[in-house]
Amino acid sequence: MSKPIKICMIGAGRVGKLHSGTLKRYIPDGVVAALVDTQQSMLDETGQEFNIDKRFALLEEALDKTEFDAVVITTPTFTHKDLSVMAAEHGKHVFLEKPMAMDLDECDQIIDACQKNGVHLQLGFMRRFDPDFSLAFERIQSGEIGEPMLVKSLTHGPGLPPPWACDLKTSNGNLAEVNSHDLDATRWLMNSNPTRIYLEVANFKGEERGVNAEYYYDNMIASLKFESGGLGSISGVCPCDYGYDARMEIIGNKGIMIIGEMKNNALTIGIDRDTGLVTPIFRRWQDRFKMAYINEIEHFVISIQSDSPPAVGGEDGRWAVAGVLAGTRSLLEKRPVLLSEVM
Amino acid sequence: MSKPIKICMIGAGRVGKLHSGTLKRYIPDGVVAALVDTQQSMLDETGQEFNIDKRFALLEEALDKTEFDAVVITTPTFTHKDLSVMAAEHGKHVFLEKPMAMDLDECDQIIDACQKNGVHLQLGFMRRFDPDFSLAFERIQSGEIGEPMLVKSLTHGPGLPPPWACDLKTSNGNLAEVNSHDLDATRWLMNSNPTRIYLEVANFKGEERGVNAEYYYDNMIASLKFESGGLGSISGVCPCDYGYDARMEIIGNKGIMIIGEMKNNALTIGIDRDTGLVTPIFRRWQDRFKMAYINEIEHFVISIQSDSPPAVGGEDGRWAVAGVLAGTRSLLEKRPVLLSEVM
Amino acid sequence: MSKPIKICMIGAGRVGKLHSGTLKRYIPDGVVAALVDTQQSMLDETGQEFNIDKRFALLEEALDKTEFDAVVITTPTFTHKDLSVMAAEHGKHVFLEKPMAMDLDECDQIIDACQKNGVHLQLGFMRRFDPDFSLAFERIQSGEIGEPMLVKSLTHGPGLPPPWACDLKTSNGNLAEVNSHDLDATRWLMNSNPTRIYLEVANFKGEERGVNAEYYYDNMIASLKFESGGLGSISGVCPCDYGYDARMEIIGNKGIMIIGEMKNNALTIGIDRDTGLVTPIFRRWQDRFKMAYINEIEHFVISIQSDSPPAVGGEDGRWAVAGVLAGTRSLLEKRPVLLSEVM
Amino acid sequence: MSKPIKICMIGAGRVGKLHSGTLKRYIPDGVVAALVDTQQSMLDETGQEFNIDKRFALLEEALDKTEFDAVVITTPTFTHKDLSVMAAEHGKHVFLEKPMAMDLDECDQIIDACQKNGVHLQLGFMRRFDPDFSLAFERIQSGEIGEPMLVKSLTHGPGLPPPWACDLKTSNGNLAEVNSHDLDATRWLMNSNPTRIYLEVANFKGEERGVNAEYYYDNMIASLKFESGGLGSISGVCPCDYGYDARMEIIGNKGIMIIGEMKNNALTIGIDRDTGLVTPIFRRWQDRFKMAYINEIEHFVISIQSDSPPAVGGEDGRWAVAGVLAGTRSLLEKRPVLLSEVM
Repeated sequence: MSKPIKICMIGAGRVGKLHSGTLKRYIPDGVVAALVDTQQSMLDETGQEFNIDKRFALLEEALDKTEFDAVVITTPTFTHKDLSVMAAEHGKHVFLEKPMAMDLDECDQIIDACQKNGVHLQLGFMRRFDPDFSLAFERIQSGEIGEPMLVKSLTHGPGLPPPWACDLKTSNGNLAEVNSHDLDATRWLMNSNPTRIYLEVANFKGEERGVNAEYYYDNMIASLKFESGGLGSISGVCPCDYGYDARMEIIGNKGIMIIGEMKNNALTIGIDRDTGLVTPIFRRWQDRFKMAYINEIEHFVISIQSDSPPAVGGEDGRWAVAGVLAGTRSLLEKRPVLLSEVM
Repeated sequence: MSKPIKICMIGAGRVGKLHSGTLKRYIPDGVVAALVDTQQSMLDETGQEFNIDKRFALLEEALDKTEFDAVVITTPTFTHKDLSVMAAEHGKHVFLEKPMAMDLDECDQIIDACQKNGVHLQLGFMRRFDPDFSLAFERIQSGEIGEPMLVKSLTHGPGLPPPWACDLKTSNGNLAEVNSHDLDATRWLMNSNPTRIYLEVANFKGEERGVNAEYYYDNMIASLKFESGGLGSISGVCPCDYGYDARMEIIGNKGIMIIGEMKNNALTIGIDRDTGLVTPIFRRWQDRFKMAYINEIEHFVISIQSDSPPAVGGEDGRWAVAGVLAGTRSLLEKRPVLLSEVM
Repeated sequence: MSKPIKICMIGAGRVGKLHSGTLKRYIPDGVVAALVDTQQSMLDETGQEFNIDKRFALLEEALDKTEFDAVVITTPTFTHKDLSVMAAEHGKHVFLEKPMAMDLDECDQIIDACQKNGVHLQLGFMRRFDPDFSLAFERIQSGEIGEPMLVKSLTHGPGLPPPWACDLKTSNGNLAEVNSHDLDATRWLMNSNPTRIYLEVANFKGEERGVNAEYYYDNMIASLKFESGGLGSISGVCPCDYGYDARMEIIGNKGIMIIGEMKNNALTIGIDRDTGLVTPIFRRWQDRFKMAYINEIEHFVISIQSDSPPAVGGEDGRWAVAGVLAGTRSLLEKRPVLLSEVM
Repeated sequence: MSKPIKICMIGAGRVGKLHSGTLKRYIPDGVVAALVDTQQSMLDETGQEFNIDKRFALLEEALDKTEFDAVVITTPTFTHKDLSVMAAEHGKHVFLEKPMAMDLDECDQIIDACQKNGVHLQLGFMRRFDPDFSLAFERIQSGEIGEPMLVKSLTHGPGLPPPWACDLKTSNGNLAEVNSHDLDATRWLMNSNPTRIYLEVANFKGEERGVNAEYYYDNMIASLKFESGGLGSISGVCPCDYGYDARMEIIGNKGIMIIGEMKNNALTIGIDRDTGLVTPIFRRWQDRFKMAYINEIEHFVISIQSDSPPAVGGEDGRWAVAGVLAGTRSLLEKRPVLLSEVM
């Protein structure tokens, strides 16, 4: 029998709560041994909710005062590099939320630190662990739709991201914070790296929601070209209010595959024939990817227990960051941009 | 080129309007040459709506004063026998709405009159001409799901039937007026005659809707046994308010087939994540079976032009009436009833 | 923090494996402390698969030689009463698979033993813990579709039940072994007890599958009448080969609710336009109700930890057995049978 | 009562057959009075199939030798201008298939000729008459999803277009021949003109299908910017083999609307649990848009009878051609192109 893995959760906000709750409720072999957050109120709230007694303002303290095998990093993007490198240098395995980092140099530092210290690095691309997406991947790999030619992916989310994520000065905007998942998933299912990206963006709700950052956009369409010659399209709408929506379509030279749907439950209700039929929708990403979040964190625990590398790692995170950087340049320079220009 | 067929529409009410409108709009070879209704206001309203100039209170007058090849009978069930026999005896082809008649003796008189006078008799079981149902039939016939073992059929409709149709003294109730379609469709798809029927009924809305006829029911479940050994279940809910609903499921020894759905349009709308997704529903039977109504009346016209017998005729109507009579006896005597007891 | 609950798993077959696997993988607070099975090979196979070291041929031994808080009983129906009573008399909480027992006297003995010994009794009606079914229940309870009038439920399963379950001498047949779930779920969602049942059955595959028990049937339709005046229909097809299928529809005086679907993944594939679109189906009940099995056993663990009664207990199991007994009498006597005749 | 409209069908190929068949079967007030095709064998084949006796090699002959009110032009794009102008100058109403013409000058000549001669000009954008698409338009116009922000549209078709349509020397390629519909439909539903377009294309099947025209592509993704500030994305895959696929999604500031689906029938079949569920797909555009083709040609007939302008005309066709020209320039110059550069 394997030894349970002790985890230090870094970040006590929405994503920290999600992973803490998943570990506590569903993962017998993953124990949240410590919680880190600079904000005392969040630290206490989340610590109490999930019975995590060891709470620290800083990772340094946690490293100093308690024992654990791994960290799960859920803090804002601009903190990822320092936290990952510090954890790796202390021999802790790293589960790192997307986007991996602010730029490729940071990505390289994280990858290097993990390699040098012999610790695992898993990126938080949970779609790869969703039952629908992972079955799609398997069936595409088996050749069912032939050679992938064209892929479409969308992420539309209901909530306005936090202020730092809306501003190109402190983040890479929605392309990074919302659509990193699509950049990873299209590359994964196409089985090919993107080579060129072109962005069109729009800002419909910024003013009414109090966002006045330069270059802010809440609607985005990215066109992609892949090494294989294939094509891609990604759409991002955030905030979208109608629910959380993440779907893909991929066409190969033999056929099409449609992945994901908006409805949350197999429940159809008809009351009023003027309204028609009603079906519950995914309200939040936590609902849409509940099983994926269980599976990805279980995968991280097992990869440590069995000393086998995680299925999604630093290179995958780095490619998504490269796509973000090229896409943002396309937006600023109003032209298609090669990924080689930023890599 | 074939000669257009002249039709006398008997009944200017809902069903008469439907068939008149279908013929006028979509069937170049079917001409509504005359309209018959004892109620002058309906006669004028429907006559004007569809530009039918020749209008008569009685079929006798129409036969006397104008020329036509066929009749379409859409009047209440208790008038079917007299009208059909009269039309047949004047050499007119007969399209007769369901239920065929009040009892088996009436059915026999209609069948005999049509046979003796060499005219076609087509029953208004439009499901047989619906693209979904007819494709299902073809694929079942081809052996796709193997030998049919169990069939389920439902008809739920929004409107309260007219008073005469709610009363067992003037009709055979909802089993006849609403669920005749299911009795026909289950026999058709099972490719076997029913041998036994058991009814459970309930009355939830009668009082609030002002129906106080003895034995009135607005909810019904019928269990069926077929000659083949197969089983069936039919549900009827009328009035049901949420829309018009007609679906079937059939299980063979190789597989299952699900026929029909409630949604009217391939249109899914998400506005509010508390509500979820919304899809238009079929509001009325006229919407659900629009194409079936076009196809069935076109089939009638072509069967006359080509002198080939209609695909659904007197025997089919008679079997549905037999099922109604046995089912009603089951309801009154609270026991399963063999169809042979009423045939 | 609550103390983990130690569980003795009784039965090392399919259902014992399912619950053991669920507890091991997903329930940190539920520990499989012992395994009991009279068949040594199954005991070892399942014990090894799930790392359960304490293995016993008999519950008596397990009670004598190891410590635990609760039992999960997954053995054949005819063993339920003795095992439940023995566990209860030793102060162990009881999770008992359906059907509860062979007859109502056994049900009463189980209920009494649990009550006298102050232990919880939870019945294995996992549909009550399925996200779709439980959301449906909540929304029906909130009045969304009004007063329930008519319910339909189906369970179609791919595998031939074991020989003892096919024979009315050693079980109550498929109505008990397959459709107990429907008897419970219809009563639950209608919020009313059944009062009358009528069965039609058929045997299409028995001979080819080597079943020659008298009264064996593989297709079944049951009609139900409820105390509320409402109606119900249940269909059972087993073995059906096309997959595992469990769905319901319920119509209230305000609207309809359709619960469940056949597709296992939100994945639609089109390769060949002659074939059309393909979607994965639930292959087995373990797939269809994966989340329900997690939720029900978590509920059992929490009900012990928090000393609150389980949401589905002995009375619910007893009503399903009463339905089975009346239904079987209906089959044998070819007439509708009141539940009061068997209670 | 209105007088039937006599139509001269120009082009006896696939589209000419479709419209001839629709008129003959479903449109009592539209009579195919003459057929024109330069290819004698097609002329005879189609003439015999639909009983059209008056057959001519050239429109000039038809104008000279027979009487009609209108023409339906279904010949290759490069013939559209001459035929439309000639028909208009002889006082015939014009129904013109998409794409309208080869360039904007041709479009202007057609529009001018129709205006000067007081005849109707209807473009063959049948999606506007499809029950799903037209209901979507109505509900968007009513404000249901708020201000449109982002639209996606796709047309994937199974058959390789004819050689002239694969070559940029004799046509404007697949963007014109396949995706004109999307250019029109996105502008229609966004209620805004496109201002910028960027194309990515790929060629996966050209070689194996014997197409070696320079710039040939069988996969295409176009990004659009609209006057309103909104965004659009169009994908084209042709030939795609899996069936005919035409769907849209549109997101407004209040919600999302998904229009269209791939399944052709409400028929779901489960035979083998390894395969899963199977549903028929639209095989051809003729199947997907059957009702739309009936409605659009009926609309043309009624617009002549009632002397009211068709709902989709020359300006709509011209905008789609402008999008095609700008898109093709984007492809050749590998940059986003403003529509103002070509208009």
